[in-house]
Amino acid sequence: MSSIDLENNFANQMNLKNNRVLSESRNRKRSSAVTPVNLDSKERVKEFLDKFDFILSDCDGVLWVNNGAVKGAPEAINKLRAKGKRVCFATNNSTKTRQEFHQKLTKLGYESHMDELFPTSYSTAVYLKSIGFDRKVFIVGMSGIAGELADVGIESCGVGSDPTPRHWTPGMADVELDEDVGAVVVGFDNQISFPKLTKACSYVRDPNCLFIASNADETYPHPDPRVAVPGPGAYVAAIQAVTGKEAIPLGKPYKYFFDIIRRQHPEIDPKRTIMIGDRLTTDMVFGRNNGLKTLFVQSGIGTYDDMINFKNSNDPEDHKCVPDYYLNSLDDLNKYL
Amino acid sequence: MSSIDLENNFANQMNLKNNRVLSESRNRKRSSAVTPVNLDSKERVKEFLDKFDFILSDCDGVLWVNNGAVKGAPEAINKLRAKGKRVCFATNNSTKTRQEFHQKLTKLGYESHMDELFPTSYSTAVYLKSIGFDRKVFIVGMSGIAGELADVGIESCGVGSDPTPRHWTPGMADVELDEDVGAVVVGFDNQISFPKLTKACSYVRDPNCLFIASNADETYPHPDPRVAVPGPGAYVAAIQAVTGKEAIPLGKPYKYFFDIIRRQHPEIDPKRTIMIGDRLTTDMVFGRNNGLKTLFVQSGIGTYDDMINFKNSNDPEDHKCVPDYYLNSLDDLNKYL
Repeated sequence: MSSIDLENNFANQMNLKNNRVLSESRNRKRSSAVTPVNLDSKERVKEFLDKFDFILSDCDGVLWVNNGAVKGAPEAINKLRAKGKRVCFATNNSTKTRQEFHQKLTKLGYESHMDELFPTSYSTAVYLKSIGFDRKVFIVGMSGIAGELADVGIESCGVGSDPTPRHWTPGMADVELDEDVGAVVVGFDNQISFPKLTKACSYVRDPNCLFIASNADETYPHPDPRVAVPGPGAYVAAIQAVTGKEAIPLGKPYKYFFDIIRRQHPEIDPKRTIMIGDRLTTDMVFGRNNGLKTLFVQSGIGTYDDMINFKNSNDPEDHKCVPDYYLNSLDDLNKYL
Repeated sequence: MSSIDLENNFANQMNLKNNRVLSESRNRKRSSAVTPVNLDSKERVKEFLDKFDFILSDCDGVLWVNNGAVKGAPEAINKLRAKGKRVCFATNNSTKTRQEFHQKLTKLGYESHMDELFPTSYSTAVYLKSIGFDRKVFIVGMSGIAGELADVGIESCGVGSDPTPRHWTPGMADVELDEDVGAVVVGFDNQISFPKLTKACSYVRDPNCLFIASNADETYPHPDPRVAVPGPGAYVAAIQAVTGKEAIPLGKPYKYFFDIIRRQHPEIDPKRTIMIGDRLTTDMVFGRNNGLKTLFVQSGIGTYDDMINFKNSNDPEDHKCVPDYYLNSLDDLNKYL
């Protein structure tokens, strides 16, 4: 009867490999990826420097890990500036405002200016402003988004803890919905809760409410490799499952994020721009999607083996994850700059 | 440059329809659905009664809504028993143990016996026992699952609130993982939190850990039509997004759930069994997937219009949602029994 099915299913799941990205769309036609160049000599670095005038740099995993600067990275970025390269910071991190990122960069030894800062908290605010949004935003996320929205005159609610009231039973959730809410923005949030998720789903299901992912990263970096921290993409998937509505994703690797940066810096020439990042599936794909050169550093999430796996994959989509250049960390540049 | 893209995207989302189920797989070949029979005459009810010996009945939305019995439903079920029909209760609700369901059924005027009760809290325990599972279970769900697991000698953890500790910053989550955990079970949970979800994702990502959905319903019923309450399927989607691993779904509409019921009742003949339910996408599909007859009642989630939409769809998958018989509620049977 059924025991065989049940046990086969068990066996199948035990054999499941954790390679979602690699396993998608296996059956497409073959193509070849670029061969990444290791910037391990003065000649290669010189040739590299001649390729670009503009740097877009990711932050977490490239410039810092948690609260400490990546060793040698401030020196490298400052040397690049001294050589006339211009820098913008493009991070999927939405937990802080630009002002807070500016303070962190300064504290860790990086020069930065407000018009160079593009956290997704800010890109979300710019996006909503650009479409003439004039209602209230419900945030599944942290204070960075609320701060940037306030800065462009958009009211928001939802940030912070929202625990399940004691009198709620599973079938009886007294949810008060705010009729002014016209958009839900999802970012990283370590105060997710049942009431918060219920409100977000209820708003999003309304056809007149926008659903925006400040970014859609499924995981958030964590030093312990056993720990899988849910990123905004986890909440986006949950809300999408409940409502059937897809989010507008504003972070890397999506094109809109670059559009927002270029609105403020129309002088950026994609062909003369390098994207530096530690995430192959976001930073490198973002570069590729926008016609930029890409530099992968291994001081954050991605590893050399990941890069090689993407290069050797038969799936052309995986080839977007392969960088033009790679380094252990930005520190390795210092000896050649 | 980009503003047109941004605004088109906005316009597209504003036009999004909330019809996930209907819109999937539009391009398949045409097929025809059954024509549901309204049980609105003595003759039709008589013919209906001749078709089956065994009833599988859903609970929420069929027998009760929240804490009150559906008017006339206890009388109808008891009359069907008096006519020699046997009854089992098959519910995707995992928040209670069988014992607690038995108490609720009794309190609301339904006769019931322990061997007739199949909440997904119990089916999960039976499933894990059947595959010889001997480790600990981490539960994203409520005490019903823990109770049923304990009843078959399986230890569990995770039920209840698990708030984010004050000292956690977004990048620094001190997650303690229990090495004995070998399975994560997801059910309805109104105490979802960031630490709970992080632990679940971390366990599930381990290739040696099972990932089980006691059921995968995306929504939980709520009396206010504006409120979209996330069901276990929302958490399943989130964990799946983070880990890339698919859950084993044990509730309706999946076949395993019927396998588990039949293990305990090998005398059930699918051809002589009727599935009664209020959810077209779970109860009716469950019946269809297992060769049962189906009866749809409109005292819970699904509506007459939903039924007609599924019938008129061009997608053969939608036709699985169309019942053989329908009624306003079980009360309508009383006048013909």
